[in-house]
Amino acid sequence: MTLLETIEGPADIKQLNAGQLADLAGEIRHFLIDKVLRTGGHLGPNLGTVELTIALHRVFDSPRDRILWDTGHQAYVHKILTGRREGFDRLRQKGGLSGYPSRAESEHDTIENSHASTVLSYADGLAKGFRLRGETDRAVVAVIGDGALTGGMAWEALNNISGAPDRPVVIVVNDNGRSYAPTTGGLATYLAGLRTSPDYERFLEWSKHQLRQTPKLYEALHAVKAGLKDMLAPQGLFADLGLKYLGPVDGHDIAAVEAALRQAAGFGGPVVVHCLTRKGHGYRRAEDDERDHHHAVGVSDPATGEPLGSPGPSWTSVFGAELVEIGRERPEVVAVTAAMLQPTGLAAYAEEFPDRVFDVGIAEQHAVTSAAGLAMAGMVPVVAVYSTFLNRGFDQLLMDVAMHSCPVVFVLDRAGVTGDDGASHNGMWDLPVLGIVPGLRVAAPRDGASLRGALREAVAITEGPSAIRFPKGPVGPDIPAVDQHDGIDVLHRSPGDDVLLVSVGAMAATACAAARRLTEEGLGVTVVDPAWIKPVSPSLIKLAEQYRLVVTVEDGLRVGGYGSLLAQELRDAGVPAPVSGFGIPQRFLDHGKRADILAECGLSPEDLARSIRLRIAADRAPGVRRVEEESR
Amino acid sequence: MTLLETIEGPADIKQLNAGQLADLAGEIRHFLIDKVLRTGGHLGPNLGTVELTIALHRVFDSPRDRILWDTGHQAYVHKILTGRREGFDRLRQKGGLSGYPSRAESEHDTIENSHASTVLSYADGLAKGFRLRGETDRAVVAVIGDGALTGGMAWEALNNISGAPDRPVVIVVNDNGRSYAPTTGGLATYLAGLRTSPDYERFLEWSKHQLRQTPKLYEALHAVKAGLKDMLAPQGLFADLGLKYLGPVDGHDIAAVEAALRQAAGFGGPVVVHCLTRKGHGYRRAEDDERDHHHAVGVSDPATGEPLGSPGPSWTSVFGAELVEIGRERPEVVAVTAAMLQPTGLAAYAEEFPDRVFDVGIAEQHAVTSAAGLAMAGMVPVVAVYSTFLNRGFDQLLMDVAMHSCPVVFVLDRAGVTGDDGASHNGMWDLPVLGIVPGLRVAAPRDGASLRGALREAVAITEGPSAIRFPKGPVGPDIPAVDQHDGIDVLHRSPGDDVLLVSVGAMAATACAAARRLTEEGLGVTVVDPAWIKPVSPSLIKLAEQYRLVVTVEDGLRVGGYGSLLAQELRDAGVPAPVSGFGIPQRFLDHGKRADILAECGLSPEDLARSIRLRIAADRAPGVRRVEEESR
Repeated sequence: MTLLETIEGPADIKQLNAGQLADLAGEIRHFLIDKVLRTGGHLGPNLGTVELTIALHRVFDSPRDRILWDTGHQAYVHKILTGRREGFDRLRQKGGLSGYPSRAESEHDTIENSHASTVLSYADGLAKGFRLRGETDRAVVAVIGDGALTGGMAWEALNNISGAPDRPVVIVVNDNGRSYAPTTGGLATYLAGLRTSPDYERFLEWSKHQLRQTPKLYEALHAVKAGLKDMLAPQGLFADLGLKYLGPVDGHDIAAVEAALRQAAGFGGPVVVHCLTRKGHGYRRAEDDERDHHHAVGVSDPATGEPLGSPGPSWTSVFGAELVEIGRERPEVVAVTAAMLQPTGLAAYAEEFPDRVFDVGIAEQHAVTSAAGLAMAGMVPVVAVYSTFLNRGFDQLLMDVAMHSCPVVFVLDRAGVTGDDGASHNGMWDLPVLGIVPGLRVAAPRDGASLRGALREAVAITEGPSAIRFPKGPVGPDIPAVDQHDGIDVLHRSPGDDVLLVSVGAMAATACAAARRLTEEGLGVTVVDPAWIKPVSPSLIKLAEQYRLVVTVEDGLRVGGYGSLLAQELRDAGVPAPVSGFGIPQRFLDHGKRADILAECGLSPEDLARSIRLRIAADRAPGVRRVEEESR
Repeated sequence: MTLLETIEGPADIKQLNAGQLADLAGEIRHFLIDKVLRTGGHLGPNLGTVELTIALHRVFDSPRDRILWDTGHQAYVHKILTGRREGFDRLRQKGGLSGYPSRAESEHDTIENSHASTVLSYADGLAKGFRLRGETDRAVVAVIGDGALTGGMAWEALNNISGAPDRPVVIVVNDNGRSYAPTTGGLATYLAGLRTSPDYERFLEWSKHQLRQTPKLYEALHAVKAGLKDMLAPQGLFADLGLKYLGPVDGHDIAAVEAALRQAAGFGGPVVVHCLTRKGHGYRRAEDDERDHHHAVGVSDPATGEPLGSPGPSWTSVFGAELVEIGRERPEVVAVTAAMLQPTGLAAYAEEFPDRVFDVGIAEQHAVTSAAGLAMAGMVPVVAVYSTFLNRGFDQLLMDVAMHSCPVVFVLDRAGVTGDDGASHNGMWDLPVLGIVPGLRVAAPRDGASLRGALREAVAITEGPSAIRFPKGPVGPDIPAVDQHDGIDVLHRSPGDDVLLVSVGAMAATACAAARRLTEEGLGVTVVDPAWIKPVSPSLIKLAEQYRLVVTVEDGLRVGGYGSLLAQELRDAGVPAPVSGFGIPQRFLDHGKRADILAECGLSPEDLARSIRLRIAADRAPGVRRVEEESR
């Protein structure tokens, strides 16, 4: 029996001695590598927090004390230590262990998966609440990466936490010098300064000693506490805000982390524990991976660490390659990313045009508004961002870009169902959100060719913003139009006026498959792809007049989505055909495979065909209250 | 002729001598007090930036150099100095001078009105763009208040600006110790420390001298540049990020500000110029106003400075008073505000329960997520925020609150058309935005009684968030129900099945007035107020089955709004009645009076009645393509 197999909860690790703890860390690391390569998941971040997590559970008393994980993808060790070791065989699989904390899984989890930089705000709220309830013996511990500290929310929270010097919050900065990519900006330079501080501290100890030999000067300095503190410890930024700073601590030295955490726990006010960790620590292949230290891995061969299977070119890579082409032709085109250079496909662009890519860190608000500034300076900014993260910059898109009519191009990767990463990563909100922004044009390309075309159209727009959305994964073969109607691509047509099926972006293949089924049954179905879905094309409105039923299918939230938009436009135009909208129901989706989740939402070709069939039947018999078949 | 009357543009003030500049400042101050008390507008912030603005236009060459104003309500002096003096007679009036910068008004304006904390991101983008275009002689100057520095966007921007030490941006911190209210948190304490630094600097000069007497120690210190810099200037936070810091400077001393700005302009990298100003400076009545230093004034008597006219109790005050009542009964109810304690009606609550109100600064993201933390600790947080500012916290509402099913109550003041403050302040986005959030319940009370009722219902919810939205201004008399239908208030009923008019919140009076007109014309109209508009009540759906036309009227964006939501639900339920939605069209609204803007949107009782009449006629003659009468 391994040591790991004896750990059923945090209490079990409080008994271990130093040697056992070191063994346990080794076992956990092997366990992680073995399991995560089999299932896919976040590897690098978790290998970096093995010792830190052990120390946290030895010092604090979870769940009475609250240990909070920012973003949550570094909580695997926490899961292992809180009785969920056996779930790792089905990590991130439908019905299996979530890749993030989950309150349904364990009382040790508080925040589930979320976007970055949130944890300090949760911690501030919990600390305020515990104080008001008189539960002042409950510690609140927030673990946040240095990358997430570049997010504006973290600053807002630091300002509030530091504003209450007697309300304890333990802030553990898990500093590995990077988020997904290396951390950027002034903060990173500052933290790098702190990292090198042991020498500095030794010097300061020495100079403190020297000062004591010059009593008058020492006294004078002592009187000015702030000045002295600045001299004696490199606390700078944190201390300036009024936060006690402990560190830097070697985050892979359990005893050292534990000592710092115990000191922090007893401090009685907000305190920063600065832990230096290495992403991928203990797994050579991850440590050597300069790109992202195996941040997240797909299902891989445990022997070689190489990903299994090759699904063909992705939407991301099509975008990335085309942007490079455009960049060669137009020097004013620049790219902006929020700490996602690789995942959004900008690596090649950055390679060829290093001066024309701006990685702003985890800072979507700044990404959006600085792009407005770039546009005002005459550039053509392309902001590449995951669909779900654009919500962080919604106000900026609306006010700073759209209200100012800035020609900024937003490229929304991972739009629609993403699957494995759970509820927070599904890009299912963008169509309703983008739908309300005045003057914004929105494209949803159906394949590689139309993505390239939409991108070229978007960068040619000189007034007002545009957005292009596409899903995660392989782009698949191009889907040629069988005809054109007044500028709109027709993808399928069978004689008759039964159904106009309007397909949004990547749902084209599903829409065509459903249409073929209905055609076989004798129904007249036309499938069109408007490509640019906002504003609604007048041609589409005229076309819709010719059909008895209009159906929309979109890989996004049904409520307020494209179907809802089109229905309102048709009604405004006096087109009598009813609109049936198919999309994602209004709830947070559990993690699972994209195809499975779409099927669950009734968005498989079979389900779509069946639902349309029932709708037609109901419309032909309007007196009968129809069976509710749509995904709501 | 006054000196002011000779100033037609920035060039004219570059010629003036010190005495003339002082005279000019005095004249501008008198001009502001005189004009703004007549028209209403932002007074305190502009009185605080008279000398700063003069100095900016003497040192920089606008519009080639770009002077950017955060939020924009402190740009009146800038307007006066850039040829718009005469427009002040019609400040903030329809067709008159905007209360914010406006590119349509002047080439000296770059950013129009916006939300707080954006300016540094714009500046970063402009500086990047100018650099790429080789226009390196163009300065980018951003003026930001200390209050706005608490906003997360400002941090994201500081991190990026400081990350490029050779790309110049001049950051003018206009530090008056407050935004609307005094600035809070660790940052405020830090800035207060800087304010007192002249003594500190004198001491440091002395100690530097002393150190020189101890050569070995001085040498050693000198070798560690960072340490020495910390000793010699209180730059702390800014310097830690790599930003050159100049100040503090007396912001009412034109020569001193000018000297600092000239130094900053020649520095060749990002630099902070820290100016100390006083809100309301030079107007005793404003200086003495501890509450907000005449931040914004309504039309007032110039002799007494007292506001003219008293429109009766406001929606805000009804909310504030009821929350105090609830607070007395339930100790777990706490309030959260983002630097808007007074304007959101929380002052009385803060007075009675000082420990149970959290002003987080201009930090909506933190307001929302810290409220989630409070809820997780067992409190009942009420987040009081202007409708338009909630967009800043949309991602946090969706992920951190709704996805975690936290019972947080959002109270959205200034929902719908607000008018005078221009496009950025209209609360017209909340219904579509709130509409897509799973599990969120939304109430739109129509009067004081229903606001009190909705608030009590909301704080009683134990699972999932809720939001209550109401407009700016006087609440008016209660609007009693004439009947109840299955839990839904009926406000008007005339025999017949022509129209079911569903009124959202404060549009009740308009809806009833329109219904009375239609009734007089012999149509059968029922007006209902569902009060809780999300989720859609099943009673409402059943009721809608009985009518030939369903009409919705809302004080919010039509696209994706309540009408759109209800139409989708009715269609899903198989209710055949068509839905005509009336609301605000999808564009940014110019400033003007609320009533005027609503009328322009076709939301007067007369227009509403006329539009409904036309719609009924069109539906009765379906073969005829109808005239487009709705506000789109």
